[in-house]
Amino acid sequence: MSCPRMPEKGDHTIPALLDQPFCDDASQLEALEECRRLAQSYVQVDGSVAVLSDFASDVSYMYAGGFGKSLHIEKPFTLLPSAFEDCIFHLLHPDDLLERHILELRYFAMQKELPVTERTKFSCHCRVRVSNGDGGYTYINHRIFYLKSHQNGSIWLSLCLYAPATDNSNRAGIDGKIMNQDTGEIIAVEQYSRYDRSLLTGREVQILSLVAKGLGSKQIAAKLHIALYTVYRHRQNIISKMQVTNATEAVRIAMTMGLLHE
Amino acid sequence: MSCPRMPEKGDHTIPALLDQPFCDDASQLEALEECRRLAQSYVQVDGSVAVLSDFASDVSYMYAGGFGKSLHIEKPFTLLPSAFEDCIFHLLHPDDLLERHILELRYFAMQKELPVTERTKFSCHCRVRVSNGDGGYTYINHRIFYLKSHQNGSIWLSLCLYAPATDNSNRAGIDGKIMNQDTGEIIAVEQYSRYDRSLLTGREVQILSLVAKGLGSKQIAAKLHIALYTVYRHRQNIISKMQVTNATEAVRIAMTMGLLHE
Repeated sequence: MSCPRMPEKGDHTIPALLDQPFCDDASQLEALEECRRLAQSYVQVDGSVAVLSDFASDVSYMYAGGFGKSLHIEKPFTLLPSAFEDCIFHLLHPDDLLERHILELRYFAMQKELPVTERTKFSCHCRVRVSNGDGGYTYINHRIFYLKSHQNGSIWLSLCLYAPATDNSNRAGIDGKIMNQDTGEIIAVEQYSRYDRSLLTGREVQILSLVAKGLGSKQIAAKLHIALYTVYRHRQNIISKMQVTNATEAVRIAMTMGLLHE
Repeated sequence: MSCPRMPEKGDHTIPALLDQPFCDDASQLEALEECRRLAQSYVQVDGSVAVLSDFASDVSYMYAGGFGKSLHIEKPFTLLPSAFEDCIFHLLHPDDLLERHILELRYFAMQKELPVTERTKFSCHCRVRVSNGDGGYTYINHRIFYLKSHQNGSIWLSLCLYAPATDNSNRAGIDGKIMNQDTGEIIAVEQYSRYDRSLLTGREVQILSLVAKGLGSKQIAAKLHIALYTVYRHRQNIISKMQVTNATEAVRIAMTMGLLHE
């Protein structure tokens, strides 16, 4: 097997989900089929929605039971052309979407620090609001599992579950939690947020801080005495690492996480 | 297929889970295999404990992931010689066990009133305390699904899931809920507790009320002018319908449900 190696320890930052070095081997088709079967089984029991994301191929397999209708998903199976299920994300309350996004970035960063064999022990839980189409919102439970990693440490297959919430009490925030499933222990936020600083390099933080102050790419290039192309490249890397679609979203997330310089 | 028919409507009371009229047909082995596979898949994803109970054969198939250890279950698979997983039940806090038991009786009674095809829409949720072995208790989530019914309406295969609770806040009671999984609607307790009265016949209520007052079987026979054997038979039926092991437990449950005469 010729797998691209992970960056050496000196590199410090965590690569974006889709930018991890992936490799091919014969056993992967089997593992993918197994995980697709697991996702289907889950849906068959509790009627929820399960999205199996393949970060190596940047596609998702979405299975929906009876609860799919509440998320405007009519078909029992859909192949999505992205590892991120935007069709569900765009139904979430914007505040919850942001919080959920940060939780997943932290979950990802924490998982990357763990040996591959330890990763299936930990799952990520939150309760988010989804639009009911009438201007109102309904609570749903959202869970994330990283089912498979490549031998080189790249996280490959993730399973996201969407099910109705049993707790509909009115509370602020998404009540995000990372749990050790073997023991039931809830991991303290201080423990998993310590990887936050490894999400972006010093240079990226510097550039995003300037974006946050309203500077355009040309102004940033001039201020830092670097080429405009280099600024573009950094911005693209930031967007990719933050798993967002534009720099404004990246700023919002980095600010909420306290990553930016004053 | 020669299936024993369900009692006619005039019979009123709901049979005990194990006393339903079961039948055999070739497709059942396949359905059982499918459900065993579903239970295993569930455990594989979230590492919890899943018990598939076969009420026709009075056995259970227990699958345990990493969380099994917290429930003193060491092996990934155990065939239990009963449809009820006493090895888990005896770890529950007695108050929670009673409340959970009543919730399941009501869930069963409600499901019996539904067409077979509607039953997989509804699941039963609660949070119970399990002994941690040091005199303390830990919260876990418990869910029940009736996966398969026979064509004659008998509930055949149930799946019970035991997973760590994400909500460990100190609240009284088990927060029991029956949910429509397609819509997320929580069924009001008034709606499903209206079947309570159909759990026991008038005669059974009369006899259990006398047991509750401390009368022995001989005294009950004398008071009601019936044979001692008849009292024994009624007591056995009550115990069976209440899914308990003795009359004292049946009294406790019936009292909590408000079924007994003053």
